[in-house]
Amino acid sequence: MATLYVLNGPNLNLLGVREPELYGHESLDDVESRCRRVVEVAGHELEFRQSNHEGFLVDWIQEAGLAVKEGTALGVVLNPGALTHTSVALRDAIAGLDVPTIEVHLTNVHAREDFRHHSYISPVAAGIVVGVGTLVYELALQALLNRA
Amino acid sequence: MATLYVLNGPNLNLLGVREPELYGHESLDDVESRCRRVVEVAGHELEFRQSNHEGFLVDWIQEAGLAVKEGTALGVVLNPGALTHTSVALRDAIAGLDVPTIEVHLTNVHAREDFRHHSYISPVAAGIVVGVGTLVYELALQALLNRA
Amino acid sequence: MATLYVLNGPNLNLLGVREPELYGHESLDDVESRCRRVVEVAGHELEFRQSNHEGFLVDWIQEAGLAVKEGTALGVVLNPGALTHTSVALRDAIAGLDVPTIEVHLTNVHAREDFRHHSYISPVAAGIVVGVGTLVYELALQALLNRA
Amino acid sequence: MATLYVLNGPNLNLLGVREPELYGHESLDDVESRCRRVVEVAGHELEFRQSNHEGFLVDWIQEAGLAVKEGTALGVVLNPGALTHTSVALRDAIAGLDVPTIEVHLTNVHAREDFRHHSYISPVAAGIVVGVGTLVYELALQALLNRA
Amino acid sequence: MATLYVLNGPNLNLLGVREPELYGHESLDDVESRCRRVVEVAGHELEFRQSNHEGFLVDWIQEAGLAVKEGTALGVVLNPGALTHTSVALRDAIAGLDVPTIEVHLTNVHAREDFRHHSYISPVAAGIVVGVGTLVYELALQALLNRA
Amino acid sequence: MATLYVLNGPNLNLLGVREPELYGHESLDDVESRCRRVVEVAGHELEFRQSNHEGFLVDWIQEAGLAVKEGTALGVVLNPGALTHTSVALRDAIAGLDVPTIEVHLTNVHAREDFRHHSYISPVAAGIVVGVGTLVYELALQALLNRA
Amino acid sequence: MATLYVLNGPNLNLLGVREPELYGHESLDDVESRCRRVVEVAGHELEFRQSNHEGFLVDWIQEAGLAVKEGTALGVVLNPGALTHTSVALRDAIAGLDVPTIEVHLTNVHAREDFRHHSYISPVAAGIVVGVGTLVYELALQALLNRA
Amino acid sequence: MATLYVLNGPNLNLLGVREPELYGHESLDDVESRCRRVVEVAGHELEFRQSNHEGFLVDWIQEAGLAVKEGTALGVVLNPGALTHTSVALRDAIAGLDVPTIEVHLTNVHAREDFRHHSYISPVAAGIVVGVGTLVYELALQALLNRA
Amino acid sequence: MATLYVLNGPNLNLLGVREPELYGHESLDDVESRCRRVVEVAGHELEFRQSNHEGFLVDWIQEAGLAVKEGTALGVVLNPGALTHTSVALRDAIAGLDVPTIEVHLTNVHAREDFRHHSYISPVAAGIVVGVGTLVYELALQALLNRA
Amino acid sequence: MATLYVLNGPNLNLLGVREPELYGHESLDDVESRCRRVVEVAGHELEFRQSNHEGFLVDWIQEAGLAVKEGTALGVVLNPGALTHTSVALRDAIAGLDVPTIEVHLTNVHAREDFRHHSYISPVAAGIVVGVGTLVYELALQALLNRA
Amino acid sequence: MATLYVLNGPNLNLLGVREPELYGHESLDDVESRCRRVVEVAGHELEFRQSNHEGFLVDWIQEAGLAVKEGTALGVVLNPGALTHTSVALRDAIAGLDVPTIEVHLTNVHAREDFRHHSYISPVAAGIVVGVGTLVYELALQALLNRA
Amino acid sequence: MATLYVLNGPNLNLLGVREPELYGHESLDDVESRCRRVVEVAGHELEFRQSNHEGFLVDWIQEAGLAVKEGTALGVVLNPGALTHTSVALRDAIAGLDVPTIEVHLTNVHAREDFRHHSYISPVAAGIVVGVGTLVYELALQALLNRA
Repeated sequence: MATLYVLNGPNLNLLGVREPELYGHESLDDVESRCRRVVEVAGHELEFRQSNHEGFLVDWIQEAGLAVKEGTALGVVLNPGALTHTSVALRDAIAGLDVPTIEVHLTNVHAREDFRHHSYISPVAAGIVVGVGTLVYELALQALLNRA
Repeated sequence: MATLYVLNGPNLNLLGVREPELYGHESLDDVESRCRRVVEVAGHELEFRQSNHEGFLVDWIQEAGLAVKEGTALGVVLNPGALTHTSVALRDAIAGLDVPTIEVHLTNVHAREDFRHHSYISPVAAGIVVGVGTLVYELALQALLNRA
Repeated sequence: MATLYVLNGPNLNLLGVREPELYGHESLDDVESRCRRVVEVAGHELEFRQSNHEGFLVDWIQEAGLAVKEGTALGVVLNPGALTHTSVALRDAIAGLDVPTIEVHLTNVHAREDFRHHSYISPVAAGIVVGVGTLVYELALQALLNRA
Repeated sequence: MATLYVLNGPNLNLLGVREPELYGHESLDDVESRCRRVVEVAGHELEFRQSNHEGFLVDWIQEAGLAVKEGTALGVVLNPGALTHTSVALRDAIAGLDVPTIEVHLTNVHAREDFRHHSYISPVAAGIVVGVGTLVYELALQALLNRA
Repeated sequence: MATLYVLNGPNLNLLGVREPELYGHESLDDVESRCRRVVEVAGHELEFRQSNHEGFLVDWIQEAGLAVKEGTALGVVLNPGALTHTSVALRDAIAGLDVPTIEVHLTNVHAREDFRHHSYISPVAAGIVVGVGTLVYELALQALLNRA
Repeated sequence: MATLYVLNGPNLNLLGVREPELYGHESLDDVESRCRRVVEVAGHELEFRQSNHEGFLVDWIQEAGLAVKEGTALGVVLNPGALTHTSVALRDAIAGLDVPTIEVHLTNVHAREDFRHHSYISPVAAGIVVGVGTLVYELALQALLNRA
Repeated sequence: MATLYVLNGPNLNLLGVREPELYGHESLDDVESRCRRVVEVAGHELEFRQSNHEGFLVDWIQEAGLAVKEGTALGVVLNPGALTHTSVALRDAIAGLDVPTIEVHLTNVHAREDFRHHSYISPVAAGIVVGVGTLVYELALQALLNRA
Repeated sequence: MATLYVLNGPNLNLLGVREPELYGHESLDDVESRCRRVVEVAGHELEFRQSNHEGFLVDWIQEAGLAVKEGTALGVVLNPGALTHTSVALRDAIAGLDVPTIEVHLTNVHAREDFRHHSYISPVAAGIVVGVGTLVYELALQALLNRA
Repeated sequence: MATLYVLNGPNLNLLGVREPELYGHESLDDVESRCRRVVEVAGHELEFRQSNHEGFLVDWIQEAGLAVKEGTALGVVLNPGALTHTSVALRDAIAGLDVPTIEVHLTNVHAREDFRHHSYISPVAAGIVVGVGTLVYELALQALLNRA
Repeated sequence: MATLYVLNGPNLNLLGVREPELYGHESLDDVESRCRRVVEVAGHELEFRQSNHEGFLVDWIQEAGLAVKEGTALGVVLNPGALTHTSVALRDAIAGLDVPTIEVHLTNVHAREDFRHHSYISPVAAGIVVGVGTLVYELALQALLNRA
Repeated sequence: MATLYVLNGPNLNLLGVREPELYGHESLDDVESRCRRVVEVAGHELEFRQSNHEGFLVDWIQEAGLAVKEGTALGVVLNPGALTHTSVALRDAIAGLDVPTIEVHLTNVHAREDFRHHSYISPVAAGIVVGVGTLVYELALQALLNRA
Repeated sequence: MATLYVLNGPNLNLLGVREPELYGHESLDDVESRCRRVVEVAGHELEFRQSNHEGFLVDWIQEAGLAVKEGTALGVVLNPGALTHTSVALRDAIAGLDVPTIEVHLTNVHAREDFRHHSYISPVAAGIVVGVGTLVYELALQALLNRA
């Protein structure tokens, strides 16, 4: 039994409240429940967190990375939110510890503003799932489990 | 029962032969078998094709799009290969008929040459799955089935 | 009596089906009929074709160019569709044989995505008619007849 | 009976004098005569003007736009000359009053210097006719009449 | 005895007809004859083809690449024509099978339009010969033979 | 008692007529009345003008600048309209005489087309008020009065 | 009675200490006092905060946005400081909850380094007041009150 | 005896008033006197004008160009002021009538803001004299006389 | 006796763990020891800290800057890690209090990804030492001591 | 009596031989004679040199700069030739010793290739004279004498 | 009998020593011998030189160009080394005397750093041979002989 | 005992004369003395040179590189001066022989003109020390000694 981390960046705590026509009506708690089911069926443990602070997300990726090194975790599903486009620190945490990371986005970032087309995370991610709503979390967990 | 199209662009017929250290040893036939299983379990039909000709891919997307409009197809999983970065015609076929399309790439295009970071397809795709090898096809089919 | 070619690129076979709010409800057959009338009134012959393959469009422009050289054709009305923005081969065919070509677009490409603002064809076209719907074909034929 | 405006920007008063190898030997008066014929045959009235002042061209587009709103005019054929590439004020006048405008250029601007490839007017024009000499005015008037 | 492929892209069938002041008066058949002599003197076999279809060129590079892998071919002399600047698919075929390829251009592409200064093929070519007319084919064949 | 200039650029005479859903239903006369009240309450005099000619706006800024130098004026509230993005002449008039200038825009220019994000005026303005409708004039006058 | 938030980003706690020749000698407490007076005169309540942490600013904008939704707040005056140019997270918080926000800057950012000319906040702000010193806070509060 | 035109663009009427530390204390009248002396010594006539309106400058260049064609003028010394960087209309007037034009600038535009490094006039000017104060007019007149 | 601050940004706590082939096997504690020796030999005090939070780093630079102003500190050696490329807030803290700062990087950032070639910190740093491993800290402390 | 330096960069020794249709038939010796006359009439001494080596040109500008400091020289007329566009070393020599320098070019560099539009020298030159053939040397010497 | 020049730029004297895995183990003397054989077989004379000084290379191209004009030389094979990307002076020497020049590079510059993709020499070269090791010299000499 | 090279590029012979407010009053001889002390204390030998010729600097780096290969030198401290931004030849000399090189700059190049922010040398340097005056030489020598 190992841990799968699902880490969420800024404003994802607003899921269901923020622009529902864009992000849907499900809350982040709903997403956590659906993730928990997938992970527990596979006989593993879920660690699901959110923060508006880049610093905490860096801390958590380091925590996950060290756990992967120790064999007690499988990797990270990361929805970096707005930090996708601005955070070299998250990228360095992933690359520095070589953390297996699946990057997810709820909406099709390529159909939005130009600055959302570039991700600092993508080049160091093991995989990327974009744009099919909250299903992206489940597909990403599958990808992570499939690597194990 | 409906059809799910899996369409593959230039050079994907070389899968298993071309740069195996990058793309793995599975052939395109192996991928087709795995896709067929997923689709048939869901009670649907698979249409799996490959071409090195942009023109045929445009024809096939049109065919799929018209079938979706008539209710006999669910959509397309598209691995556009090299055409990802150069074909406005594929994009127009998808957007013109509003074909539900999941774009897939076997490798992490964002970790390769700069010109591979831009996709003409992504902005009109319903979803995108990148970089976890041939598993991308199965995740994409799931996404398509999930929309139905 | 000479031939006037009207050549249409990828996805124009969908005219009337594809995004009718953008392109109108007339089909490509309707356009052909309207073109035939204009050309026949002028005592000439119409050759009206469409393909999703860049290769065939290159073949046809070569055919038209050689006919112009032999004095049996007047030139080409070309709606390159998506190839407008990506095909150096079409441009080279036009420039290589110095084929009198009027480029047409049904919609105002300058009011759409950035990548549609650049045309490889325009610098080698004899004239350009853009953005007043299917009327562009008739205006372009007039321009071609007027050159004769 | 309604008015059709044909408005000409800087240096078009030199037509026939300025670079005749590029613009031909017809004067702007000749163009006016040809336009008048087209408009009068259609039972309408022509208002044909030229100025080297951006300010007057803005005034005139406003005048035309208000007349269109009142139903006494059909729209504007605009040859903005050099202002094509530099005038946001002309664009705002057209867009602000939603004036039906066909932009025309005597020469193929896309075959000239780079800065001539961008037009502030095109994105708000109803249509564009480029590069077949003074015929562009007549084709543009036809397009305008056809809208009525 | 092995095969040397000479593959030609769009519009090269017009050689001798298209812009002779730029490309000279020799036809593609003349070039083939000169190539055949070089290859046969070296005791090898020539496969000389041309197409306006990117798809066929991809097919043929794959064919050549597989033959090289089997030891029955030495490599490809490729004049990609207009596809030089637009085709990622050709590049992927060459790189995917690691086909020894010498890229040739009859004219000095660096002395022409800006978009001709970039080649998708060059970074994966084994060598490049540019701008001394039809002699480029013979120099390229020598380079290929020299590698053997 | 001193003069406060409020100067308006091209198309602002259309206020209330032009794109009312964007600019509101108040006319420029209404704005003038509201400005007059603010200025007169402060014991000063208002000079309120509009022109579609860059030349007259340059003249007026020079007039205001010289009046400021003589101590009979406080400065300028400038809505440069379309000239914001294209006029170095306005900028030079402001900078050349060091005229205290508050730049205003009725709408949020940063939420519109890219070319509206750059202002030649902003770097030489004493202050900038953007995007809260006709209130911008009153806030700008307050800023100007506050400097006195 | 409703709350008006005034939120200040990194280094604004140094006001009066940091580069006084650029930012003036008033401290942030002085600004708070002046703001409190404006808000209390209008019969409302002021919430005035500063942080060097992007995360806390995101938290506070979310808090304000939810309060606006519940009708207990009017909006935010935001001086994002250095985060203006780097924070997509602040932008997403504002846009996600549609928080009425007036962006303010004490100095004319357009007259400083190039990277300060771009603001991630401006396109989602209801209004912007720049460059007239600490007065910007009072003008912005007025704008906010005026919307109510 | 022929006429030499010296034409001055926006804000040059402020010479001696505007930023004297940058442009010196001489007025435009002083410059005119110095120019008159040079021209009259050479047995010619001076036409010295200034306008803040691009339109009048275009008119005057046309006037000068036609006079040159008739043999009654030698050419133009043009200080386009701010229009240097924004006016295609001035350029077209010069190029359209092939008017011998020496472009002058009082200050070293290349040592100022980036946007002042580009001139629409320079590529069509016969010569350029920059950056040695009002002496530029006399050197430019010498260059013009020298051509005669 | 004064304090010398050594401040470390995101992920530097991983030193010795993160990509040891790139950053070496020494831990951040080892670096601290080596720094302490240098500072104590010089008769001063070391303050050595690390954080993954931009906010805390801003706080600490402010603290150091105020101490320098009071004469109890000499300055800062700053390894901003990933924030080098993204943090205007750190830059503003340094520039705002004019804190003597030596920027250090363990690896040659100019030999890595393009986005690492730009530093927001460098233009406001007193000195920069790059690319000779953990020695950079000692050289930077020497530079700081040398300024005293 | 003081020295005036005229320094010429790479390939100017070919004057009269190199592209005479572009540069005219006068040789560099002819230019030297014309310069000598101007300088001697003014009671000064000419130092006229040419080199294809950037290093010698840097040496000579240093020599001239030190002479200016000592009061035995007036400055430099510099035709940097190709080094205009590539040499920071020449710029640093001029700026480092604050050498009064008039930059000259025989042809209109702004009407040639794009890379010739940028000069490293212009921003540090006291004046610039371009494009009226060998007369530029005499005009530049006059400008230099005029400064004395 | 005529001379063929082979000129080599900076660092080519290191051939065989410098990065042998990239450039091979042959020395420049070996290359000279191979070149001599080719040239002497053709009944001509070889002039083979190398310099780290751009100035000498300019001198030598001028020497060769004058010899070509006098009929005693056939042209230049030029390996400009690092100067390929930085020297306008070499380009001007070639273009100024219209020297028949074949540019060669031992390695595929298009597969290396971005700045190596641009050559100042290519647009003025008669031909270009790239990337097949020291064979490039022989192919280039053949091209030169073939022109004679 | 080994040699340490300190090599200085264009204009560094002016140290103490050139812009002393920027570079200080110490001469290059003073720097040499300080360097000699550091190197001799360490039991090594100093080779200290300056040239305005890129060619000699290339020669010297080659000399140093070969000495390092033979074990008689430790490496190079290089102040490339203006060549930093323009010389690929210096870069190739360093990279070609893999010469241990510490790049130094007396002033903070990142706080000066944009073109000084890019260094061709940095990506191939072993270390970089910038911006603390002549101390940079001593820190760089320490870094070099530390590597030994």
